Amino acid sequence: MTTALSHASGDSVAGTADPPSPDWGIHLQPVGGLLVDRNSLNYVRLSSEALEIALQLARTRSVARTARIRAGTSRRDPDEVQAEMVEALSGSWLTSSWLNGALDQPLRVSGSTDAYLPLLASLQLTNRCNLSCSFCYASSGPALPGELTADDWVKVLERLAQSGIAAVTLTGGEPTIARDFRRILATATALIDHVDIFTNGLHWSDELVAMAAACGNIRAQISIDGRAERHDLIRGRAGAYNESLHTMRRLTAAGVPVIVAMTVTPANYRDVAAVVSDVDSAGARLFRAGRVVPVGRGDQDGFGLTPDQVADVIRQFQETRHLNLESLGWDQCADLGEQLAPIGLPVEFLTPGYLSWHVRADGQVTPCQIEAESFGRILAEPLERIGESGRLATVRSTARGCRCIRRLNPTDDVDLPFGLTPGPSTRLDTATSSCCGTARCGSGCGDD
Amino acid sequence: MTTALSHASGDSVAGTADPPSPDWGIHLQPVGGLLVDRNSLNYVRLSSEALEIALQLARTRSVARTARIRAGTSRRDPDEVQAEMVEALSGSWLTSSWLNGALDQPLRVSGSTDAYLPLLASLQLTNRCNLSCSFCYASSGPALPGELTADDWVKVLERLAQSGIAAVTLTGGEPTIARDFRRILATATALIDHVDIFTNGLHWSDELVAMAAACGNIRAQISIDGRAERHDLIRGRAGAYNESLHTMRRLTAAGVPVIVAMTVTPANYRDVAAVVSDVDSAGARLFRAGRVVPVGRGDQDGFGLTPDQVADVIRQFQETRHLNLESLGWDQCADLGEQLAPIGLPVEFLTPGYLSWHVRADGQVTPCQIEAESFGRILAEPLERIGESGRLATVRSTARGCRCIRRLNPTDDVDLPFGLTPGPSTRLDTATSSCCGTARCGSGCGDD
Repeated sequence: MTTALSHASGDSVAGTADPPSPDWGIHLQPVGGLLVDRNSLNYVRLSSEALEIALQLARTRSVARTARIRAGTSRRDPDEVQAEMVEALSGSWLTSSWLNGALDQPLRVSGSTDAYLPLLASLQLTNRCNLSCSFCYASSGPALPGELTADDWVKVLERLAQSGIAAVTLTGGEPTIARDFRRILATATALIDHVDIFTNGLHWSDELVAMAAACGNIRAQISIDGRAERHDLIRGRAGAYNESLHTMRRLTAAGVPVIVAMTVTPANYRDVAAVVSDVDSAGARLFRAGRVVPVGRGDQDGFGLTPDQVADVIRQFQETRHLNLESLGWDQCADLGEQLAPIGLPVEFLTPGYLSWHVRADGQVTPCQIEAESFGRILAEPLERIGESGRLATVRSTARGCRCIRRLNPTDDVDLPFGLTPGPSTRLDTATSSCCGTARCGSGCGDD
Repeated sequence: MTTALSHASGDSVAGTADPPSPDWGIHLQPVGGLLVDRNSLNYVRLSSEALEIALQLARTRSVARTARIRAGTSRRDPDEVQAEMVEALSGSWLTSSWLNGALDQPLRVSGSTDAYLPLLASLQLTNRCNLSCSFCYASSGPALPGELTADDWVKVLERLAQSGIAAVTLTGGEPTIARDFRRILATATALIDHVDIFTNGLHWSDELVAMAAACGNIRAQISIDGRAERHDLIRGRAGAYNESLHTMRRLTAAGVPVIVAMTVTPANYRDVAAVVSDVDSAGARLFRAGRVVPVGRGDQDGFGLTPDQVADVIRQFQETRHLNLESLGWDQCADLGEQLAPIGLPVEFLTPGYLSWHVRADGQVTPCQIEAESFGRILAEPLERIGESGRLATVRSTARGCRCIRRLNPTDDVDLPFGLTPGPSTRLDTATSSCCGTARCGSGCGDD
């Protein structure tokens, strides 16, 4: 065994305002284990010893009792074990918080040592949309052949809930026009702790606003493409901008947190400050900027920003820092890196495929919304089969749209709590990237 | 949909003293769903509508907000929906408690609509024992061929924890002499909410007592076969009775709850009051009497009690009612039936196979400790395959030792929350029995 936290190699940051107190859980994987805050989806990858201690501290809520358990197992002196444990845990802000009671209730165990199961899934309830934006990565419009029914989605939600998933995103197309959307929403809110709806904000009835507010665990993410004229032009509908802002006002007045997402391009980068100001007035909690990274699709389509344009956007962020809403974009990466550098935690995130899945409207499971390669079919196979190491290794090498899946860099040493035997695994090559992501994959790869 | 609770058809009672406040969860099954208190393992089988309402109330902690969600789904008037819901829930003590905030946090979802997964499993860590009692149902003594290793048991515990199991029992043989028992215990206490150790109470070192006490979620169940002379005779060791009582005293002094189990036979039925008195002095929390029902094995071995003998035991229970410890035996059945009759809940319990599994030392999964028929191999197959309806239907018809498995009587109507599609199921014939069991199967079929 290694010193507690010596394997710590990751963290991620979710974009929530006023985060609730952490809901810590353990998420097992074939080559390691994570300590996850199931509310924010922040996590750290821990050594086996640190995971065991976390589970035992959370159970006993006592450093002395945890030391006595560990002394019993190792047949050593409890005081000696306790002194060593306290010294090891004092080595980082996170583990030293454990010594002060941060783990105050038993940890929920999710994941598997045989497969990579998701902490987050985005469910494309339908590919249909009531708009047809030039910008849409999902090429939404017509239904896909063989789209899942509401009955199917209810079953998907039940399986994901039973597997211990922490959050789902209902997306599309426009998810609110999926058949029996309200029934799917009522199921999701009851079974899953955190539910996001990615919507264009059009045609939200008063009843749907009231229902979403009653749920209490729902956030709405509304995409904005620029100031009013530009947004309406891209969306192909006059008044779309104003209607989306009106929906924001009604949702926030009812108590539903609203996140605004904007993909920044050479065409709209000057609009950032104006949009931030407008959506702040409409009550949005968070503004999340994404950009198309200047390789691949971005290059081909001319969506990449020049360094001067990036500097201009950062200036606009700084100008609007006094507003109520929180801004989060690629400019946060530097701060994040600096913040985490002193404790030696490189930036990590909910790696597509390995920690987050996208379930397409036809039931195919892909690493993320912009990736066409499937690694399973959601209702045709058990989740544990879909998340097999071998399948993920394959999709990792064949993925064309999603580059983030290659950024996973788990330790090569198998190091599982309690000496768990790992399942069949495939060695993963180290991949590095200067890009950083957020927990909800809200920036960095062109999907908004 | 039916009126809430119209499908209610079960309950069970666990033998714990000073029960903690309920930890409610939903346990899905192929032909229905249960609302379970994961602390006591009490449960009721609810209609789909009642399960949905329970999940939504637990999420929103508000009757009005739950009504608004349900009004949104059904496109009806929220006030009307709320009035109907309140009326339906007022129909039983359980559901009316929901109206007063009994469900105060989100419900954990366990189980599966594709398989019967256990809420409780007994793990036979080894068949070896440091005694060889004439009485032993497990014929303990030599190790079974191919017994699982400590590594294997750690993996079993991880899989069961991830599946959402509420409790495990570590049994044997004598579990404390299993190789690396302390490591298995440290894993169990960290991963599973409730851990019972079935032990003969011999050779407990001070370190093991201290370790068990430090865990905080462990109970010890110690078997006693009669007053000292008789116990020692049956156990084949002079001083065994006194050593077991000494272990009880040390465990209870350290804070580990002790349960005493006694299987009452024509040979020892006169000892009940004396044993109850002794183990009460030693600090035991609960005395649980089992008897061999006068059919099958019981008849053959002459272990059945006559009506006069039963009356004598009941008299002894009444004599010792003033003591601190709680007594629980077959004589409680009548009270239980009376208690539940007014709300129309027939007695049900953790049906072997369908809700509780016994994992033999060699990894074979059987319905209970006295049943030799296996329906799966614990590490060779996913839990969902072991718990398939078809396999359970087969073992239900071929079981020779365990009769309790035939007592399951789920409703024939498929009635799942949110209109979930049921998994492949096999119709189960109705079986009735005048016997009643307890949640931990602590009486009624000859296993102690």
